Amino acid sequence: MTAMTLRLYELAGAQSDRRFSPYCWRVRLALAHKGLPVDTIPWRLTDKQAIAPSSQERVPVLVDRGRWLSDSWEIAQYLEAAYPDAPSLFGGAAGQALSLLHTRYGDTLNAAIFRFVALDIWRHLHEQDRDYFRTTRERRVGMPLETLVGDRDQRLAAFRDSLAPLRLTLKAQPFLGGERPLYADYAVFGAFQWARCISPYALLAAEDPIALWRARLLDAFDGLARAAPGYDA
Amino acid sequence: MTAMTLRLYELAGAQSDRRFSPYCWRVRLALAHKGLPVDTIPWRLTDKQAIAPSSQERVPVLVDRGRWLSDSWEIAQYLEAAYPDAPSLFGGAAGQALSLLHTRYGDTLNAAIFRFVALDIWRHLHEQDRDYFRTTRERRVGMPLETLVGDRDQRLAAFRDSLAPLRLTLKAQPFLGGERPLYADYAVFGAFQWARCISPYALLAAEDPIALWRARLLDAFDGLARAAPGYDA
Repeated sequence: MTAMTLRLYELAGAQSDRRFSPYCWRVRLALAHKGLPVDTIPWRLTDKQAIAPSSQERVPVLVDRGRWLSDSWEIAQYLEAAYPDAPSLFGGAAGQALSLLHTRYGDTLNAAIFRFVALDIWRHLHEQDRDYFRTTRERRVGMPLETLVGDRDQRLAAFRDSLAPLRLTLKAQPFLGGERPLYADYAVFGAFQWARCISPYALLAAEDPIALWRARLLDAFDGLARAAPGYDA
Repeated sequence: MTAMTLRLYELAGAQSDRRFSPYCWRVRLALAHKGLPVDTIPWRLTDKQAIAPSSQERVPVLVDRGRWLSDSWEIAQYLEAAYPDAPSLFGGAAGQALSLLHTRYGDTLNAAIFRFVALDIWRHLHEQDRDYFRTTRERRVGMPLETLVGDRDQRLAAFRDSLAPLRLTLKAQPFLGGERPLYADYAVFGAFQWARCISPYALLAAEDPIALWRARLLDAFDGLARAAPGYDA
């Protein structure tokens, strides 16, 4: 079937082209992998009404031929089933099941990286989102964002050490999916692209195999991720 | 091709049927998955000579028709290529590449679990291995084994929290490989089977989805892993 242009609601900052959600990046790259045309719509945290038809309050939200979808993992599975003739995101049923660990591992990275970039996120948010973000996130972590990220330099070495499984994998092969990227790559890359779009803080050493893999994914799809407003960190 | 009986050198304790190496368990289950007959040979850490033809000093070592193989990941890839008609360990090329992260994640778990069971390992070792083990491991960790594991109760909650990616994956599907186990499952399960074979310490809460998955793998292949001498921890 020929794809109609899909619609993707993406979290945006004060600048409407600063799209930084790690979960939205997973879907953006999955759509590029599938070669599906998409219109992206900037969305702010407090725009609950705009995505109400999805029956929940978070992005990414994808609209395909009147169908409203949410949750990046659910969306990836939907795309694989709805567009079976486009390049596979998983490389088969086993690959699809196996990719769930990569996805949940990516979630853990998002949580770890939040403790480095939370204040940078706040700084880039649209005026309408700033109080909402600070209040909800400070309640969740139990401290001011300034305190949360305040000791990030002291935590950096431990964070880098914690990436050992990813590093050792990417030392042995160019992508988590092997010679070419798969959804598993996008699920993990989202975390680093999020950081890159929102913060000048250098989470990775330049010579880290993870940084080299990130560069390969920044170049993918004609530099789609590299073209996004962000930092060289 | 019909398989000749393969030979697997496995780390053993003072009791020769106490086979506890997490890396050996990966291979043992991979062989069962492939339906390959194997003779297992108890091996001790100081028996370097017995596996010298493998040109390295660690088990698992697998001997197949005169060919000596080492490194659990290398062995799994060898078995997949050498026995393509037996059930696949990876479910295809994508699954094979994707399984490397699970494998390196399993390595990380082994390192984390060592800090809980190191002294229990020492207690179960053959007389000939005890001094060697204590000396080399204490040099590596920079402290007596008693000190290393001494605060394990205080670290247990953080260890369990760190398993979130695994837990969330196994909440959604019975195995890392999906409806049935694949090599990725064995690569991670090895860590828990190691602990179970060597230590009465309860690393997992009984209701943890990871414990339920472990139980499914203990039951696999007619209870191969469950039959191994160990603890119910």
